[in-house]
Amino acid sequence: MTSSNPSTTPAPEAPLTSVAVLGARGRMGVEVCKAVDAAEDLELVAMVEGSEWLFNVADGGAQVAVDFTRPESVMENIRFCIDQGIHCVVGTSGFDEEKIATVREWLAPKPELGVLIAPNFGIGAVLLMRFAAEAARFFPSVEIVEMHHPDKVDAPSGTAARTAQVIGQARRAAGMGSAPDATRDDASLPGARGAEVDGVPVHAVRLAGLVAHQEVLMGATGETLTLRHDSYDRASFMPGVLLAVREIQRRPGLTIGIDGLLGL
Amino acid sequence: MTSSNPSTTPAPEAPLTSVAVLGARGRMGVEVCKAVDAAEDLELVAMVEGSEWLFNVADGGAQVAVDFTRPESVMENIRFCIDQGIHCVVGTSGFDEEKIATVREWLAPKPELGVLIAPNFGIGAVLLMRFAAEAARFFPSVEIVEMHHPDKVDAPSGTAARTAQVIGQARRAAGMGSAPDATRDDASLPGARGAEVDGVPVHAVRLAGLVAHQEVLMGATGETLTLRHDSYDRASFMPGVLLAVREIQRRPGLTIGIDGLLGL
Amino acid sequence: MTSSNPSTTPAPEAPLTSVAVLGARGRMGVEVCKAVDAAEDLELVAMVEGSEWLFNVADGGAQVAVDFTRPESVMENIRFCIDQGIHCVVGTSGFDEEKIATVREWLAPKPELGVLIAPNFGIGAVLLMRFAAEAARFFPSVEIVEMHHPDKVDAPSGTAARTAQVIGQARRAAGMGSAPDATRDDASLPGARGAEVDGVPVHAVRLAGLVAHQEVLMGATGETLTLRHDSYDRASFMPGVLLAVREIQRRPGLTIGIDGLLGL
Amino acid sequence: MTSSNPSTTPAPEAPLTSVAVLGARGRMGVEVCKAVDAAEDLELVAMVEGSEWLFNVADGGAQVAVDFTRPESVMENIRFCIDQGIHCVVGTSGFDEEKIATVREWLAPKPELGVLIAPNFGIGAVLLMRFAAEAARFFPSVEIVEMHHPDKVDAPSGTAARTAQVIGQARRAAGMGSAPDATRDDASLPGARGAEVDGVPVHAVRLAGLVAHQEVLMGATGETLTLRHDSYDRASFMPGVLLAVREIQRRPGLTIGIDGLLGL
Repeated sequence: MTSSNPSTTPAPEAPLTSVAVLGARGRMGVEVCKAVDAAEDLELVAMVEGSEWLFNVADGGAQVAVDFTRPESVMENIRFCIDQGIHCVVGTSGFDEEKIATVREWLAPKPELGVLIAPNFGIGAVLLMRFAAEAARFFPSVEIVEMHHPDKVDAPSGTAARTAQVIGQARRAAGMGSAPDATRDDASLPGARGAEVDGVPVHAVRLAGLVAHQEVLMGATGETLTLRHDSYDRASFMPGVLLAVREIQRRPGLTIGIDGLLGL
Repeated sequence: MTSSNPSTTPAPEAPLTSVAVLGARGRMGVEVCKAVDAAEDLELVAMVEGSEWLFNVADGGAQVAVDFTRPESVMENIRFCIDQGIHCVVGTSGFDEEKIATVREWLAPKPELGVLIAPNFGIGAVLLMRFAAEAARFFPSVEIVEMHHPDKVDAPSGTAARTAQVIGQARRAAGMGSAPDATRDDASLPGARGAEVDGVPVHAVRLAGLVAHQEVLMGATGETLTLRHDSYDRASFMPGVLLAVREIQRRPGLTIGIDGLLGL
Repeated sequence: MTSSNPSTTPAPEAPLTSVAVLGARGRMGVEVCKAVDAAEDLELVAMVEGSEWLFNVADGGAQVAVDFTRPESVMENIRFCIDQGIHCVVGTSGFDEEKIATVREWLAPKPELGVLIAPNFGIGAVLLMRFAAEAARFFPSVEIVEMHHPDKVDAPSGTAARTAQVIGQARRAAGMGSAPDATRDDASLPGARGAEVDGVPVHAVRLAGLVAHQEVLMGATGETLTLRHDSYDRASFMPGVLLAVREIQRRPGLTIGIDGLLGL
Repeated sequence: MTSSNPSTTPAPEAPLTSVAVLGARGRMGVEVCKAVDAAEDLELVAMVEGSEWLFNVADGGAQVAVDFTRPESVMENIRFCIDQGIHCVVGTSGFDEEKIATVREWLAPKPELGVLIAPNFGIGAVLLMRFAAEAARFFPSVEIVEMHHPDKVDAPSGTAARTAQVIGQARRAAGMGSAPDATRDDASLPGARGAEVDGVPVHAVRLAGLVAHQEVLMGATGETLTLRHDSYDRASFMPGVLLAVREIQRRPGLTIGIDGLLGL
């Protein structure tokens, strides 16, 4: 690999990969179309939105379909792509165990085909989660502060909750007890110490001007380690989407999350 | 003011001020003795601890007494100093309206004498509070994150609560309503949004390795302003104590807090 | 526009102020038009771009003109507005002592008219500069770290350089010497300690993903005070522009900068 | 010692390990003695300083010696320990290729014996370096800001320089070019963009009140990842020293750095 961002620019002699985008006029879909269009090794052969004829995807000769549609339509789209022998990269939300099992069944008779379903294509967010889990067992104390724009309805954010879970898991695996904390109920106000997710206090700040930010603070005697991710723009998810588009062609079967694609 | 650190280095020709330290073996008292000793314009003439004879203070010719003792003894000490014509700088906690009124009464017949009582001698903390109050009306959103060592029993910290109060006051004075916040109860965990103090969400982090830290985050469309104070050491209170020792001699009557001494 | 920011929203019974925007299709002009349009107490009566007939501004009955044009045209625009009795708010760059003196001359015969020229309409940036100057004399150490997107050609940023200047000025006024620094030339790499502006080290970070950020770090024994401003969007300048539009009508003469309008 | 940190606390039935501390009265040695003393699975059998008889170490039955002495004496100490069949954990500085080769030679005839030489026993610092190297290839931009007390003579710090090197190495291995940077010489001040170490700009802040802090900032389109390590106290190195003392007994041969002991 010879360019400044290996995840977006392959060797020039590589053949073009044909890509279809489902949900092409949605907020994420628009960004995906732009990113595919700008990538030298990818060719945008179909943009499908809403009730448009899905056969465009097959007719266009798509090798990989990217789906950012809606929970109601995504399963039908995946079914169609698998039938047509098209790899799938799926960012649509709403996947539970049952849906995942269904996709796995559909894939069984097609051992050469790959489907990747990811809740988050942000490489930075995935790295932060990974590093937090790796560092967890060295620090008795850990808390999360996530900060978002004030239009967000959930608190804490899904990403912060997942981060707390992987940290909690790592702590349990290492046999760690709870973090030191002398806070007395009779000397504290309700909520001051945050929400507890899997044993990790999580604090949610909502502030005009902010976009999406997360900080994991870890402490041991005499030192702290802070991991922070700032996301300013939907464009930040595109390197992860393109990485998935490229990698899915050599990863048959079902892949959950982009973690495994990062080669860590 | 003409020296590189006006609070610690006066003009060389100034006469020495005689200082007594009450509570000289306590954690703060020890630091005060060191700081007075190191100051070229101050002379440490008496160190008193516990049941020691308070007359040492008068016998030593102290012009200013610094009291970091205990709520049970501080009033008696102030009474003694006023009787002896000694200015007082008091950092001992536990002052309520009643005690303050009593000190004011005692001072009435001594118009040349000054007593300063301050809950916090940290100049940085006082500046942060002041700036937060000044900036408050320009930012629809404001939250506080305070971070301390895990041995702390109260949450949020007294300083964070006071900071929230001065911010809340400034917002009310400017006719501001509550900060924008779309958080829905059915999409959030209890405590995630912190404790509310005077309308300001306050989040308390407790982490091994930390000492005492406070961050005020303010947000408006497209921008945020963050004010942060990190306190690593009791020594950080000494410039404020020395400033008070020097200033109290020309500030007759009762002064609450060091804010007024900073010349802002 | 909600009532959450009192400094930008006057009483509803106030009469509308008619506003013309010069440079209406520039990046800032577009934002100004949107902001004026959205403000209940302002009416957008003229949008002028390039060679368009300036008389639209007068014909439209503009009481205030906002100029975000170019150094080549701004003087002519100001001249025209003063002649027509229209107040001016100017964000165009390139003003030197000579140009400022000229505007002052033009204003002399019109004692009721106001012109405001500001290098920066960001309230957060102006507050940061102000607070840094106020805090400067209490902290022996001070440095600035500014962080911007990698397309920026100058380093450090103009705002960081001006911040360093006001800090340097405050330190000199307080008689402070240089900050403590044991760095030895033979143990350091060129550039490691940043650029020096008025005695203050300034460090410039250029990073993909960033927009415009500035941090002033101040240190004394045992404590540090950090003031940070993050600007994510041109929209962040609009509260300052609108404040100027409203205030200029009752501030005859020439005003430089929005500092004086903030009522600090 | 509680069980909250499994990496430093073995099963209670484990036999005690006898430890000698060389340089026991130095700043680090004092901390090591305290830490060994407090560890339930370790026994402090000898404390040696300066010209004291080294045979105390052997007479005391030490299984592991910890050396925080001086470059002039450390080689002799290692030689003695190897001769006596005592494992060594060495934090003394000044090791070059030649000294390391000598130690390796000495160890050759003792295949059961282990020597660990580490420039930094701070687990947080080692983790930060590791994470920065792993994340490097996903972010076109990267810079380092290190912040220390003003008594430090070198700039940038050794840790920051090493961090820059491992990042530079990771970027080259991934075929990445230089980071995007539009800074023009004619629009910038010397030093503003920091010192370049292995292609990575490194900025050194020196501030009263600070101890030792390091921040690695990485940026890609629309997002940034920040890794920060704050070290407040020499005690923060002790978990790393104790880990080395425990692990060296089952790691024959020469080990450089504690990285390999962290099980990442």
